[in-house]
Amino acid sequence: MRAMAAAAATAAAWAQRLAGVRGLLLDVSGVLYDGGDGGGTAIPGSVEAVARIKQSGLKLRFCTNESQKSRDKFVGLLQRLGFDISVNEITSPAPAACQILKERGLRPYLLVHDDVLPEFNEMDTSNPNCVVIADSGDSFSYQNVNKAFRVLVSLENPVLISLGEGRYYKESDGLMLDVGPYVKALEYACDIRAEVVGKPAPEFFQAALREMGLEAHETIMIGDDIVSDVGGAQRCGIRALQVRTGKFRPCDEHHPEVKADGYVNDLAEAVDLILQYANK
Amino acid sequence: MRAMAAAAATAAAWAQRLAGVRGLLLDVSGVLYDGGDGGGTAIPGSVEAVARIKQSGLKLRFCTNESQKSRDKFVGLLQRLGFDISVNEITSPAPAACQILKERGLRPYLLVHDDVLPEFNEMDTSNPNCVVIADSGDSFSYQNVNKAFRVLVSLENPVLISLGEGRYYKESDGLMLDVGPYVKALEYACDIRAEVVGKPAPEFFQAALREMGLEAHETIMIGDDIVSDVGGAQRCGIRALQVRTGKFRPCDEHHPEVKADGYVNDLAEAVDLILQYANK
Repeated sequence: MRAMAAAAATAAAWAQRLAGVRGLLLDVSGVLYDGGDGGGTAIPGSVEAVARIKQSGLKLRFCTNESQKSRDKFVGLLQRLGFDISVNEITSPAPAACQILKERGLRPYLLVHDDVLPEFNEMDTSNPNCVVIADSGDSFSYQNVNKAFRVLVSLENPVLISLGEGRYYKESDGLMLDVGPYVKALEYACDIRAEVVGKPAPEFFQAALREMGLEAHETIMIGDDIVSDVGGAQRCGIRALQVRTGKFRPCDEHHPEVKADGYVNDLAEAVDLILQYANK
Repeated sequence: MRAMAAAAATAAAWAQRLAGVRGLLLDVSGVLYDGGDGGGTAIPGSVEAVARIKQSGLKLRFCTNESQKSRDKFVGLLQRLGFDISVNEITSPAPAACQILKERGLRPYLLVHDDVLPEFNEMDTSNPNCVVIADSGDSFSYQNVNKAFRVLVSLENPVLISLGEGRYYKESDGLMLDVGPYVKALEYACDIRAEVVGKPAPEFFQAALREMGLEAHETIMIGDDIVSDVGGAQRCGIRALQVRTGKFRPCDEHHPEVKADGYVNDLAEAVDLILQYANK
């Protein structure tokens, strides 16, 4: 009896948390797949979970801070892993950064991975008057970071635009430093603050909502980053679940500042619950 | 008449600032020499200035955050540039860090330049339970920084010991990122605070005073770093002059938090003034 009562309470709680959800924002790395040598591997059940969302009629948008690859390359990788995904379903920081550069007449020095350079093809990079920094992996050599520093320190009003500010992400052989630590390095070196494009910036979530055609209260974010995905979405009035895959760590469930609307084992479980309770 | 009065006022001001000075703490990089390819170049007048201090009977100690080379290598470089200097005249962070490691039973992962490794010869680096970070130049590759991150993130109580926390220094072909930005990167990635050994830590200045055998009020620091050299010394009750060489920038003279006891063009001018006024 007690077990049945507990299950009923849990069901009621999920029904309340998921009421009125009409669309999903999905983080990609750590939710759909874990990166690594040879492109990475799909997280079990996630290929089917994406397919089930699409079949259900719920709206769906991929909301990623991926900035090590162009969207074309990124989508190609995910398709090879079996995902039903296309470029125009992705909200990612590089196009948003290009928009800012154009509007403000900025010429970037690009501290980015070679694979994401095509996103900046139309930008004038001569005589740079700002730095754009993205997750660069091995391209974060001392020489490259120092070049970016020299550009910034030579400017009267240094502008540093960061594609996300994640601390780290998970690849198959372990955790990898993301762009955030290198942003902090340049901020400290030049005594400046970066402008962040991407999660957790509210403008970025709002762009994803616009592109999906839904309001914040109709949407739920699913991510593995308690601060950037969950906290960022919640600050915009979007509900958010954390998956226990990717960079998730058990201490995330006791984070001092951010509490997810729910914790699930993986995307497959999240989709099970949403399909069961969202329209109840 | 007016010019003579002004000169007299200036002389009186210097006499007051320098009264009772019996010993000098000299920063090295940016004060004695500028580093660069081939070892660097002596700053004009500084070789003679060091010789004049030694002839004067004033006490002298070199107080440096140099952590890219062992003291032996560093002294060899400075001797080749013409300086009268020996290893036992140098206070530098690596020996202080070794003392801490021994006292606390810490086994470091060394994120340091190969040239400084000999300073850590006696340390057990197997199965590391802390990270020691120093100015590493090109050794700050993504892979090396990420290895240090993985060590820290795997520890229950991550300990990060930093040899200095300088923002940047000057080499002959331009400014170079120092260890500080990389400390901030690891602090952000792991949500921790580093323990700084070296300037501006008070313990470091106090060790230099002990080694010189003088009290703080009898001593003056000469450096090119307004925060680390000047601010750090002043917090210990040591007077401090900033030289307009090395990494000095004109805005340093209007720093919002630190005001030097005097600004001089270079070490040669500082020594002129000290020899003229210190014992008056």
